[in-house]
Amino acid sequence: MKVEKIVLNEAREVSLTAYLLDTGGEFRNICKRPAVLILPGGGYQFCSEREADPVAMPYLKAGYQAFILRYSVGKHSVWPNPLQDYEQAMEMIRKRAEEWKVFSDKVAVIGFSAGGHLAAAAATMSENRPNAAILGYPVTGSDVKGCCATAPDTIPSVDKNTCPCFIFATRTDEIVPVMNSIRFMEALVQADISFESHIYSYGPHGFSTCDTSVQSRDTTISSRVPNWVADSIGWLKEIFGDFGNGEMTKPVCKAHATDNDGEFLSVDCTFGYVMGNPEGRKVVEGFLGGAGNQERPGGQEASQMTPEMMSMVSGMKLRQILEYAHMPKEVIEQVNGQLSMIPNQR
Amino acid sequence: MKVEKIVLNEAREVSLTAYLLDTGGEFRNICKRPAVLILPGGGYQFCSEREADPVAMPYLKAGYQAFILRYSVGKHSVWPNPLQDYEQAMEMIRKRAEEWKVFSDKVAVIGFSAGGHLAAAAATMSENRPNAAILGYPVTGSDVKGCCATAPDTIPSVDKNTCPCFIFATRTDEIVPVMNSIRFMEALVQADISFESHIYSYGPHGFSTCDTSVQSRDTTISSRVPNWVADSIGWLKEIFGDFGNGEMTKPVCKAHATDNDGEFLSVDCTFGYVMGNPEGRKVVEGFLGGAGNQERPGGQEASQMTPEMMSMVSGMKLRQILEYAHMPKEVIEQVNGQLSMIPNQR
Amino acid sequence: MKVEKIVLNEAREVSLTAYLLDTGGEFRNICKRPAVLILPGGGYQFCSEREADPVAMPYLKAGYQAFILRYSVGKHSVWPNPLQDYEQAMEMIRKRAEEWKVFSDKVAVIGFSAGGHLAAAAATMSENRPNAAILGYPVTGSDVKGCCATAPDTIPSVDKNTCPCFIFATRTDEIVPVMNSIRFMEALVQADISFESHIYSYGPHGFSTCDTSVQSRDTTISSRVPNWVADSIGWLKEIFGDFGNGEMTKPVCKAHATDNDGEFLSVDCTFGYVMGNPEGRKVVEGFLGGAGNQERPGGQEASQMTPEMMSMVSGMKLRQILEYAHMPKEVIEQVNGQLSMIPNQR
Amino acid sequence: MKVEKIVLNEAREVSLTAYLLDTGGEFRNICKRPAVLILPGGGYQFCSEREADPVAMPYLKAGYQAFILRYSVGKHSVWPNPLQDYEQAMEMIRKRAEEWKVFSDKVAVIGFSAGGHLAAAAATMSENRPNAAILGYPVTGSDVKGCCATAPDTIPSVDKNTCPCFIFATRTDEIVPVMNSIRFMEALVQADISFESHIYSYGPHGFSTCDTSVQSRDTTISSRVPNWVADSIGWLKEIFGDFGNGEMTKPVCKAHATDNDGEFLSVDCTFGYVMGNPEGRKVVEGFLGGAGNQERPGGQEASQMTPEMMSMVSGMKLRQILEYAHMPKEVIEQVNGQLSMIPNQR
Repeated sequence: MKVEKIVLNEAREVSLTAYLLDTGGEFRNICKRPAVLILPGGGYQFCSEREADPVAMPYLKAGYQAFILRYSVGKHSVWPNPLQDYEQAMEMIRKRAEEWKVFSDKVAVIGFSAGGHLAAAAATMSENRPNAAILGYPVTGSDVKGCCATAPDTIPSVDKNTCPCFIFATRTDEIVPVMNSIRFMEALVQADISFESHIYSYGPHGFSTCDTSVQSRDTTISSRVPNWVADSIGWLKEIFGDFGNGEMTKPVCKAHATDNDGEFLSVDCTFGYVMGNPEGRKVVEGFLGGAGNQERPGGQEASQMTPEMMSMVSGMKLRQILEYAHMPKEVIEQVNGQLSMIPNQR
Repeated sequence: MKVEKIVLNEAREVSLTAYLLDTGGEFRNICKRPAVLILPGGGYQFCSEREADPVAMPYLKAGYQAFILRYSVGKHSVWPNPLQDYEQAMEMIRKRAEEWKVFSDKVAVIGFSAGGHLAAAAATMSENRPNAAILGYPVTGSDVKGCCATAPDTIPSVDKNTCPCFIFATRTDEIVPVMNSIRFMEALVQADISFESHIYSYGPHGFSTCDTSVQSRDTTISSRVPNWVADSIGWLKEIFGDFGNGEMTKPVCKAHATDNDGEFLSVDCTFGYVMGNPEGRKVVEGFLGGAGNQERPGGQEASQMTPEMMSMVSGMKLRQILEYAHMPKEVIEQVNGQLSMIPNQR
Repeated sequence: MKVEKIVLNEAREVSLTAYLLDTGGEFRNICKRPAVLILPGGGYQFCSEREADPVAMPYLKAGYQAFILRYSVGKHSVWPNPLQDYEQAMEMIRKRAEEWKVFSDKVAVIGFSAGGHLAAAAATMSENRPNAAILGYPVTGSDVKGCCATAPDTIPSVDKNTCPCFIFATRTDEIVPVMNSIRFMEALVQADISFESHIYSYGPHGFSTCDTSVQSRDTTISSRVPNWVADSIGWLKEIFGDFGNGEMTKPVCKAHATDNDGEFLSVDCTFGYVMGNPEGRKVVEGFLGGAGNQERPGGQEASQMTPEMMSMVSGMKLRQILEYAHMPKEVIEQVNGQLSMIPNQR
Repeated sequence: MKVEKIVLNEAREVSLTAYLLDTGGEFRNICKRPAVLILPGGGYQFCSEREADPVAMPYLKAGYQAFILRYSVGKHSVWPNPLQDYEQAMEMIRKRAEEWKVFSDKVAVIGFSAGGHLAAAAATMSENRPNAAILGYPVTGSDVKGCCATAPDTIPSVDKNTCPCFIFATRTDEIVPVMNSIRFMEALVQADISFESHIYSYGPHGFSTCDTSVQSRDTTISSRVPNWVADSIGWLKEIFGDFGNGEMTKPVCKAHATDNDGEFLSVDCTFGYVMGNPEGRKVVEGFLGGAGNQERPGGQEASQMTPEMMSMVSGMKLRQILEYAHMPKEVIEQVNGQLSMIPNQR
């Protein structure tokens, strides 16, 4: 592993530390790697070491390149300095992607607390958008004024272009109330953005990875908290794909909850949306016939279907309806193949 | 294990099935057991077998008595029939607690989908309140009209008397949109109720335990989903306490996020709240002295504290401030002992 | 779930309890289920309830039918009474497989301590062999005389017909020394039998599932111990296959470590064995060409291969050599298809 | 994190790479750290990069300092060169313990394949013994001649001074037959050494951490294999103790299975051994009274105790007998305190 430390802004004491794993040679399947850009917390007053190196390690173990950005804090934290630091870091990571062996379209940002605010800002208002964002007990709304008076509320900026997010926090966090996470989830739902979230029943603010080397083992904290680390890696593999032969495998989780706003139709459009498209309807009926009326969500008998249930079905993804109908994966792929040639008249 | 099936209402085909584990004898530490009351889903049109027995097993493994309520559905589902069925079941469980070896103050309700609506109704509007509620991809808001026109929205009924909740769902559930879970969380926060939630990135509605014997292994669903089962058991152990010598150990997670509304003060009141009480302030200063100014949330130096940070500190639980100050658990218990004799002037 | 209790032998107080999960209906993919037959421990003096019901639950959760055999103990324990009880139970399970919805070729036996001795006897000397055996801190060698003077040492009976085994114990078990498990593993290796084993660093005898409802939470025991339950289920899925559409999927782990003694050749024969067969050699060379010389076990360069390494390669399974050569799974299946038509001249 | 690379022997191309985590500052509880010394595999022909950096990461995450020794291989591998390289590395780590912030009595060696042979040699025949050894699919017996003709069989050297070991391998490893692990376990039992082992049902040789970035996700390998990493860290915490306030907590797992050969008596001597010592007997009877006759191993009734069972009891650790008698942990500590003042007449 090579380590590089680059001063991005001497006056503001901004630096980017790169932990770069080897590629090629015995890692014969790996020409490039996905990456994480870590934004430690510290109330925009400092960058916590507890949320820097310890966070990098599990992603390095999983095969990701890891970068730590120590952004403008304290008297330098006036907005948009921290966001500019992020832009500079992400731009450099992508510009040097060949040299650093990074898949430039698979770079996730990970931020904690105030760093979670910065990560959310990167996900919603930056020019160099991350491809995924992991937000640890993040500050997202107006509470940010509490640690950086000039920093913006990120929630109004959530839109269709926001990347998929992984959010975790504890219910009893008194430094950053859990509503910061819940409100952000709501905004993601409104914008049809894919996300995962884990709100653990109790624990203090700032637990980082919750390893005993970082957070005292005497801490009163839920036993599930440390799971966020492995869960976030499992989630990244679904968003970015996993290591395959030379390239990454196809992602299994899309950036949007549905494909209704895609360029072409797909089995991840809702049933109602596809049936509303004459060509789409033809494809579906070719495979399902009347099956559309025989769905058993949760195992229910068609005969018991209420109009409300029917309306639910029309809100379901075609993929799930085909799965309920026990179509083999190959057939579902055929359906998808045919739909993917039908332009989506939005 | 004994199995009992009791018909609660022949006309409405309502029944309670009890799976009763042995106590005493070789289970010498166990005179009674905590219990779960399972409410299967099925859109109030039927009670899904996929969310009945398979759900009982993991809790039986953990040592819980398990009950399955098959409540009024279809033409019998007109409200408040299902809630009355619940009342009858919970009343019977507590009335027969001695015979069935159940801790009558440790009975959790577990509901899925429409059964999750019923569980939420039990938690918010029943006479025989459960002591905890596990809500699986629950219907909570006005969407319930879609499967039972007469069923009420449970969210407005969330209040201080609502029990702790464990909520899980998938982001992409199209039958019960994830907002049903998020809105309920919000209501719990407003009422200061303890909860845990896991929103998994993707997967269909109605996955139950997600074992391959219940949900097809070909299902497009997040790899984290099956974790809800073990996580909910870990959570119950924190809410109810764990099996000890003859009785259950003391719970480590309280029903409310803070103790500010308790009868007496405690280390789980917020720092500001305790300091606002003259006697409470004396106790704290006796232990902390000026330490109150030395907190390092997220490791920050006191010198860097902004007024906003100070206001955060006053919102923190005293317990966590004492932990940040590295007070040993015993000392924290001493502080708690002294505070617990000070009446809370609300 | 239906529960049946059948008295197998009134005089000896032998009974079989059946926990039978539903099939069909909403469990539409399930016409039959694999099963476990549980043999509790108790030094052949009694049948421990701690190793009966609590053990059944996790397998029921996983979708298995569960049977508990309370066999001849105390004054009735004189050999071969317990083994006869087993034969009677297993015979009945298979005879009533249609009625009880059991895959009669997917019945595992699970025994603990003295019950582990009986399970090992079933796996090595019974007429009605189980299809897999899970042995919990088993008595396997001459130590059995300590609890049943007439019971035989099972180790000399391990042979090619012994079923795959999953063995677990703690290093510090003073009631049944860990050598009982280690010696049995050795015998399985000698007979080329597939197995998995977990020896945990410390803990007492008789911990069963190690749930706090069965084993006191104050017990001095390794934190890994409870993992045996989920690990044994994961293992069974590899030995029996998993729930698929109507039938079980193909097993991924075979009963023998290699196929060298199979009826036909396969990619699970060793490289040297296949190359020793003229037709087999042709098939391999057709796909590998000279690749046989380019293996890189552990990533090593061919040029660095010593004769000893070459001899290792000939001891490797063809499947792994093909994987090292990065052949796609489909191609490996082609190779296997061609080999599987070549009779094995033993 | 600082990275240092030190050339230990230029002629033999031997180097030590140190990954050194920060201490103090925000890691206020950490003045020093335990450490791991990693010995990659490669048949003594090379040092595999797949078993170097990827292995360091999880231990760094857990808070351990990590060192990688690239020892003498190929033409330089003639024994005792590799062992001398180890001695030099371990000596340096302990000599620079203050500078590198390492607890010099908490340094574990981790070796894979041939590196596992070297780790076993370190554990059994070195001058600078490690405090624990993690052996991954290790070569331990005469098979080592296959990759290094001059290297010794380590099994005959296992004795009372061998450190605790954690061993893992796959049953179907054809490059290093599983008997290499089993024979080593046997030797550890003979010498009363503490160990943990996991033999996974199937998988190839050389899987390292089994992350998809190191071992192809298409590999035919048991789903439990990746667990060895977290399990080995959990084990190290029990052997070394966990991070506490400034120092490590007391280990919960001892280096020997019993204390019968200790300097003083303890509750970890066997019951029979303590009762054989007049003073020891007095202490025990003071607490247990006749309780010694009322033990219920596996829950059995005293009345049913056979002489053989009684002899088992005498082979049990006193600690477990006290636990069976449901003595609270504090009382057990009292018994231990009194025994620990009684010299052990060996």
